[in-house]
Amino acid sequence: MNRQTFFKNLLSEQNKAPQKNMGQAFAPSNIALIKYWGKRDAELNLPMTSSLSMSLGNKGANTSIRLIDQGHDRIVLNAQEINMDSGFYKRSQKFLDLVRPNTQTHYEINTQMNIPMAAGLASSACGIAALIKALQDLYQWQLPDTMLSIMCRIGSGSACRSLWQGFVEWHRGEYDDGLDSYAEPLPYTMDNLCIGLLIINDQEKAISSREAMTITTQSSMLYESWPKQVMHDLRLMKHALEQQDFELLGKTAEHNALAMHATMLSSQPSICYSNSETIRAMHHIWQLRREGLSLYFTQDAGPNLKLLFEKKDTNIVQKHFPNIEIIGSRS
Amino acid sequence: MNRQTFFKNLLSEQNKAPQKNMGQAFAPSNIALIKYWGKRDAELNLPMTSSLSMSLGNKGANTSIRLIDQGHDRIVLNAQEINMDSGFYKRSQKFLDLVRPNTQTHYEINTQMNIPMAAGLASSACGIAALIKALQDLYQWQLPDTMLSIMCRIGSGSACRSLWQGFVEWHRGEYDDGLDSYAEPLPYTMDNLCIGLLIINDQEKAISSREAMTITTQSSMLYESWPKQVMHDLRLMKHALEQQDFELLGKTAEHNALAMHATMLSSQPSICYSNSETIRAMHHIWQLRREGLSLYFTQDAGPNLKLLFEKKDTNIVQKHFPNIEIIGSRS
Repeated sequence: MNRQTFFKNLLSEQNKAPQKNMGQAFAPSNIALIKYWGKRDAELNLPMTSSLSMSLGNKGANTSIRLIDQGHDRIVLNAQEINMDSGFYKRSQKFLDLVRPNTQTHYEINTQMNIPMAAGLASSACGIAALIKALQDLYQWQLPDTMLSIMCRIGSGSACRSLWQGFVEWHRGEYDDGLDSYAEPLPYTMDNLCIGLLIINDQEKAISSREAMTITTQSSMLYESWPKQVMHDLRLMKHALEQQDFELLGKTAEHNALAMHATMLSSQPSICYSNSETIRAMHHIWQLRREGLSLYFTQDAGPNLKLLFEKKDTNIVQKHFPNIEIIGSRS
Repeated sequence: MNRQTFFKNLLSEQNKAPQKNMGQAFAPSNIALIKYWGKRDAELNLPMTSSLSMSLGNKGANTSIRLIDQGHDRIVLNAQEINMDSGFYKRSQKFLDLVRPNTQTHYEINTQMNIPMAAGLASSACGIAALIKALQDLYQWQLPDTMLSIMCRIGSGSACRSLWQGFVEWHRGEYDDGLDSYAEPLPYTMDNLCIGLLIINDQEKAISSREAMTITTQSSMLYESWPKQVMHDLRLMKHALEQQDFELLGKTAEHNALAMHATMLSSQPSICYSNSETIRAMHHIWQLRREGLSLYFTQDAGPNLKLLFEKKDTNIVQKHFPNIEIIGSRS
């Protein structure tokens, strides 16, 4: 099944005209504690494995959308109009083509994002999720959350996890059409858990995660063991959440992230999102852990680290990493 | 089979008394282009996979050995007597126990090494190989090279590759007693190949390769694919040597090394021999390659890199890495 057919069927019974002047929504960024790396279907963004994330509270995308009477869409990001020739504009337009009721419909989209773009902080995930929610608000679609999650997934994989706060699991699913591959919130909280964003470089990454995933799945022999790794880690992570076991959560998240980066390192060409500062920070974290501090990290498709620690250790963590931005799981 | 039995059988027909006052030998350090990582038998140092190395010319260990009339061995390394309480002394003594004809025999061993110790430059490999060759010289053992190689292997794994100059293959072997697991010189040369030692840190490593291998084989799920990786890379490497294809040699060596480090990164605990300078140098090398320079690297159980390039590019490589020590394959 292709994207067009999927969206056409899905929206066939829904309102074709806006139900208000403007749709508006916020979606949080999310950090995977058990990573999504590799697709079993590139057209529908169906993943090789399930994954599990934590949403970043008020860090994310705030989007409004309204119809405009121009011959084309307008996209404003952080108060700056996006050039129609840019890759970002073209990708956005292509996604909007999936939802607009007809080719004469055009939108003005205004997004405020309070995280750096394309630096492994899931900016495209919260961007797509906020856009889908804003569209739902505009048209007042009557669709279950699982369907919205599937729409997000088709827009940008891990966006399907950005519809909720807290801990969220994205099910791999088995079906070819992906109708069983959506995210759902998990019934866990961990109020003492903190995430510290250690921004090492907020420049756009050299290689997109989409491209990096393709290279990994096609060229890394070690990737063969990745699905087994994820199944193992996912079980441990749920156990950690059930038991409120921060050590197990941190250990499992860090191990899973490093295994993902290991599959990239063993790709051809090798992909290494870490730079020298990333490695310095990792060794610093490991040293602090040897000295008894419960500090872990996770890393996505960029050089930045996300520190994982308990609220009680905030002061000591900040002493060693003065520039981190701290986000609680319930911010 | 244990080591004691193996050595006892092997030396049963050989001279029990020295045939000269002093035995003397040199053995080169060797750098694996296809790595040895993981044992199928820890007692006999039988490897999970075959491996392929290049010897480092005149970089290595020069060892002399003679009998002394004291109640214990004396070991002098780089003109410094080794303390009897040190781990190095105890490991050496344990190895000498395998070869001495009786418990009353003691040795004075004098080794000059012109590479840093325990920094991933195969110091223990050339140390053991030089010692075995010096013992052979002292006793005038009549043993084939394959047997000497096996003795080296039992002493320190990759030492079995340090008996020859040039390119050497260590066969994994299939037998439980390891009689088919030895190294042999390969009939290839590549006169234009240079190795540049980029010493980032010559301090002793935090975790020995022996320990790191154990952790990797026991805890890394990605390690499952390592034997397949090596078989694939070994084929490519021999093809590169046959065809005198430097690009393929460099690409394959670098990929194999990174895959090995990937198995370590995905271990629990994670093992990361790279420090921030290592990663900076890697990115520098990748950048130079994107700009058209044929420059590759390999890395062992330490932060140092070994640059691989062709003689014709020596000046430009030295311009970017002024501190490298350059060694030709036929030095």
